Amino acid sequence: MSTSISSDALPNGLSVADARAEAARAYELDRAHVFHSWSAQAKLTPMTITASSGSYVWDGDGNRLLDFSSQLVNTNIGHQHPKVVAAIADQAAKLCTVAPQHANAARSEAARLIASHTPGELNRIFFTNGGADANEHAVRMARLHTGKYKVLSRYRSYHGGTETAINLTGDPRRWPNDHGNAGIVHFFGPFLYRSQFHAETQEQECERALEHLEQTIAFEGPSTIAAILLETIPGTAGIMVPPPGYLEGVRALCDKYGIMLIADEVMAGFGRAGTWFAIDPSGVVPDLLTFAKGVNSGYVPLGGVAIAPHVAASFDDVAYPGGLTYSGHPLATAAAVATIRAMEDEGIVENAERVGREILGPGLHELAGKHDVIGEVRGTGVFWAVELVTDRVTKEPLAPYGGTSEAKGRFVAESKKLGLLSFVNYNRTHVVPPCTVSDDEAREGLAILDEALSRI
Amino acid sequence: MSTSISSDALPNGLSVADARAEAARAYELDRAHVFHSWSAQAKLTPMTITASSGSYVWDGDGNRLLDFSSQLVNTNIGHQHPKVVAAIADQAAKLCTVAPQHANAARSEAARLIASHTPGELNRIFFTNGGADANEHAVRMARLHTGKYKVLSRYRSYHGGTETAINLTGDPRRWPNDHGNAGIVHFFGPFLYRSQFHAETQEQECERALEHLEQTIAFEGPSTIAAILLETIPGTAGIMVPPPGYLEGVRALCDKYGIMLIADEVMAGFGRAGTWFAIDPSGVVPDLLTFAKGVNSGYVPLGGVAIAPHVAASFDDVAYPGGLTYSGHPLATAAAVATIRAMEDEGIVENAERVGREILGPGLHELAGKHDVIGEVRGTGVFWAVELVTDRVTKEPLAPYGGTSEAKGRFVAESKKLGLLSFVNYNRTHVVPPCTVSDDEAREGLAILDEALSRI
Ligand SMILES: Cc1ncc(COP(=O)(O)O)c(C=O)c1O
Ligand SMILES: Cc1ncc(COP(=O)(O)O)c(C=O)c1O
Repeated sequence: MSTSISSDALPNGLSVADARAEAARAYELDRAHVFHSWSAQAKLTPMTITASSGSYVWDGDGNRLLDFSSQLVNTNIGHQHPKVVAAIADQAAKLCTVAPQHANAARSEAARLIASHTPGELNRIFFTNGGADANEHAVRMARLHTGKYKVLSRYRSYHGGTETAINLTGDPRRWPNDHGNAGIVHFFGPFLYRSQFHAETQEQECERALEHLEQTIAFEGPSTIAAILLETIPGTAGIMVPPPGYLEGVRALCDKYGIMLIADEVMAGFGRAGTWFAIDPSGVVPDLLTFAKGVNSGYVPLGGVAIAPHVAASFDDVAYPGGLTYSGHPLATAAAVATIRAMEDEGIVENAERVGREILGPGLHELAGKHDVIGEVRGTGVFWAVELVTDRVTKEPLAPYGGTSEAKGRFVAESKKLGLLSFVNYNRTHVVPPCTVSDDEAREGLAILDEALSRI
Repeated sequence: MSTSISSDALPNGLSVADARAEAARAYELDRAHVFHSWSAQAKLTPMTITASSGSYVWDGDGNRLLDFSSQLVNTNIGHQHPKVVAAIADQAAKLCTVAPQHANAARSEAARLIASHTPGELNRIFFTNGGADANEHAVRMARLHTGKYKVLSRYRSYHGGTETAINLTGDPRRWPNDHGNAGIVHFFGPFLYRSQFHAETQEQECERALEHLEQTIAFEGPSTIAAILLETIPGTAGIMVPPPGYLEGVRALCDKYGIMLIADEVMAGFGRAGTWFAIDPSGVVPDLLTFAKGVNSGYVPLGGVAIAPHVAASFDDVAYPGGLTYSGHPLATAAAVATIRAMEDEGIVENAERVGREILGPGLHELAGKHDVIGEVRGTGVFWAVELVTDRVTKEPLAPYGGTSEAKGRFVAESKKLGLLSFVNYNRTHVVPPCTVSDDEAREGLAILDEALSRI
């Protein structure tokens, strides 16, 4: 197991001494001038990152950390992938930007490549800057296409920070932004470990969750509902892989009631779940699919909506009333082209699937056998959640919903001391390394988790 | 006057033959896979852009066009500025991305540089991906800071495409997105040429517009209003430079009634108006200022909010409930650092001011003397609007509000044939070249306008 490692130079050529000086200055200016998201500003002591490579990042002291967070679960292709770095430099030298109304080679090719991987005939791509605006526009398309307004989304979900997106969200970050329901109604999805439906098996949970959804539709009124939006696999909210039949069931309800199905694949898509899109194994084709993050691993801000032909057709002769200055940005889409090609050529999605099946899944279940603090382990690909509980029977979370606790804080600090950057949300730690993670790196991370869990 | 020019190679090294082949393929894929903003998709025939340099872009046939649009009024530093292109390649090689919760040298330095130019003490920067989310977050901050909900914004304005931003907008693009008022109330700003206030002088227009605003506040209820949001100089809506005293008057009303003033400088900021920010000449300091576009000339998607200390303090101990994956993206902020430094070192803001005063202003007024179709010319810096009318007395627009007309279509087509890419909105053409435009280029553009106006 590696702890912190200092060498003479970081992978980007910075000497450790220069990196430290740069980090000290970056920290000072950060505290003076940078306003951070989702945070109480006076309480922050952000870690500075000065370099990264593959599955690792380097902090301001020159310590190497295994990145089991993929930052915000977005660097699916690993850090500083040479083909994507080169593509960015090439596109910058060729043509940094054009306005969205013009056509451009990088944008066109990115749209073609994305469409070649989306399920069914979702082959028209509207590009945005990130995940939140992708969901904003998908909801708008669904509302205008159906002529209806209400949207159903799930509790235990995250859909972004802008007005519609945060109101679609089903986690505590919505609360301070909720001034009425913004036309959005939340329902419960299947989650056997903390079942709302008093179910004892996945089959029961699935059946009852679908029954609950149909009842919600019935009482809200099918004629009022434009869309059901859901994360195919809820990400930040806990990586609950849907039980077999659930997504098919939701699709059937949408068909029955004339409701658009929007799949939010911002976090789950582009290899994270061990498939190109998390929805693929179900065979379900949504009417709209939103993406961001993995599409170009976040090397350049990019998101978008993949649109089914029948929805796109609503805007053939009537203008779609939405847009943004950087829609289909050449630099961002060139990074997507390079990312998707590298993922195809290097078998990166296959790697994510295999590492999940052979190493992360078995390894995490082994840890669960050893540590009573683990209540459940669940996931697929490089997309795993570990529920930390104070009591396996009551399932009392190690930190309350929407909050934190001393033990959880200690877990994060110990992991970091041992050389692991982890992604935690309330009482869970997520194991979400890049899709390119090697077997040895996956094992290294599991060993650190084992040790950190022993210390709390 | 130059019309189309073909040479052996474009400035990015593409041969004209290769550029044509690339453009043909880009066009074909665009029509198959790209969903465009604000458009009826079946009616589009987008022009492909294959290269750009300084004040010029090249279309898919190898024709050079003088870019009097700055794309979407964002390439303030001109196309392919070598320092910014180099900074992007350098940052890509060093560190493409980190999550927003970490600190990073590029982000810190960009925040410092931006804060060094913002008015007053607006020295805390929250980074977003573009202008729409900047306005979404500024409004959220104002609402939470004041504990009030309603926001006043202007008719004749554009604030972005996401839910809150499009509802703040005062142009026809809001209509299909308006389901009730989203807590937003619109008022009229000063616009002497089409005065709402039956004014005959700028002084009268200013006084009456302020009176109208105060009456709107009084009847909406000061205790319900969180913020007044306005474009310091409305951009897409018509480049109405505020009369002396107007912004000071709005600030005074905000102070009197405990309302936050949010200045949208997304289009007007970063040199466009011949000053760093369009608000500078007034001496007014807003509570929040939003930016995007010019901050890095759109080479990489970036926007943000500059926050006054008293507003930021509301989130010292209580978490700010908003964020996004790419907040403070290293590649985007590195481009901002290079852009701002080049603007400082090369006197680019001063150039914009001088070209406006010496060439564009006098030149456009001269055209107005020659062409009856020009109803009014107004602007500052490299930010000019030309009102096209069928009748100078009735001021009947050449194209209706929210629409187009045959004559206007002809004007655009003729300009393009003559080698000019123009920015048109309803009955106006905007003269918005890069801030780096040379005297000769400015004169070249005026000469093309002269000729194109003669042909309609
Ligand atoms: C499932 C999901 N949807 C949407 C978003 C919002 O994306 P962005 O942060 O790019 O706005 C996220 C971000 O974490 C996400 O995980
Ligand atoms: C004044 C103003 N505000 C906001 C925006 C929205 O910015 P974006 O398109 O980056 O979302 C624009 C875009 O043109 C603008 O001109």
